[in-house]
Amino acid sequence: MKNSDIDRLVRVLARLPGLGPRSARRAVLALLSQRETLMLPLAEALRQAAEAVVTCQQCGNFDLQDPCSLCQDPHRDKSRICVVEDVGDLWALERSGAYRGLYHVLHGTLSALEGRGPESLKIDSLKERAEKAETQEIILALNATVDGQTTAHYIRDRLADCTVDVTLLAQGVPMGGELEYLDGGTLSTALAARRKL
Amino acid sequence: MKNSDIDRLVRVLARLPGLGPRSARRAVLALLSQRETLMLPLAEALRQAAEAVVTCQQCGNFDLQDPCSLCQDPHRDKSRICVVEDVGDLWALERSGAYRGLYHVLHGTLSALEGRGPESLKIDSLKERAEKAETQEIILALNATVDGQTTAHYIRDRLADCTVDVTLLAQGVPMGGELEYLDGGTLSTALAARRKL
Repeated sequence: MKNSDIDRLVRVLARLPGLGPRSARRAVLALLSQRETLMLPLAEALRQAAEAVVTCQQCGNFDLQDPCSLCQDPHRDKSRICVVEDVGDLWALERSGAYRGLYHVLHGTLSALEGRGPESLKIDSLKERAEKAETQEIILALNATVDGQTTAHYIRDRLADCTVDVTLLAQGVPMGGELEYLDGGTLSTALAARRKL
Repeated sequence: MKNSDIDRLVRVLARLPGLGPRSARRAVLALLSQRETLMLPLAEALRQAAEAVVTCQQCGNFDLQDPCSLCQDPHRDKSRICVVEDVGDLWALERSGAYRGLYHVLHGTLSALEGRGPESLKIDSLKERAEKAETQEIILALNATVDGQTTAHYIRDRLADCTVDVTLLAQGVPMGGELEYLDGGTLSTALAARRKL
């Protein structure tokens, strides 16, 4: 392990989310054993993605073009903008296939603990987009965490003088959820928002 | 996710041990958000390690030189050779600091299920090394699994006509192990190999 090149690779890999020093070492061993089929393709895929992928100046999505393919897609409903915390949430919504409007990626949430204020998020550009005539609804699809909900309330206040509808994802029992294992917060929200069958 | 470069990076990363499609997506998002500080350094570290790291022709270790720095180190005890399954095991022994001899990395074990026979392991070169006059002991530090122990017995048989001592790591209760949580196999081995205090 005194080998500087291997050691550096372990240290860089260990900075990826989900990998620690131990799993980074395992990954490096796998890479070194499969140099032609795994290590060089990974280096090439990284270099190529770093070069080719840009951040969409309109919505904040990662794509090969700016504006991104979602913003340019003529089949998408331009009257709705779904606000998400990061691109991973955008991908999750796209995988669900349930949403056909546009997005706005904040790249973070407000966080008093981590010192992130409104100026570090893309809220000004969201306001500009909300003021366009074609925009009718802003859907706040933020995580059901303290920071996510704080951010949702902050955005609602900032958009108070716009004419758009500001909506929030429904909260309740998740699909397949068993009541026995749900937390009290989820249960009380679901009970308060109960509806007629 | 229709973005081919991002998608390819996710697929290649997901082939690393310990990462699945979901954690590979998270890792790619982290990489894209930290292009200068994480993504390009990782691509560079991979390319450099792939170029610089070679497999030691004597012991099978990964290093920048061949023979590797362990084989060349004049302070290491050349009379002992510790046989391990892969380079990760060598690193684990080096981290323990308990061993100052040489190594021999098999790069695998015999496995009837996966169709790996003796010819796919570096057993012939181990035999050559065992026959050298300076070699006095071959320590079989193989995993305490069926495949590891099968390989250990096979190597002992192959080295039967050499004059070296062939030894095996002790089996028993691991440091900090609580009897309540140990399996029956470990307990019975530890009981059978009990020693006088």
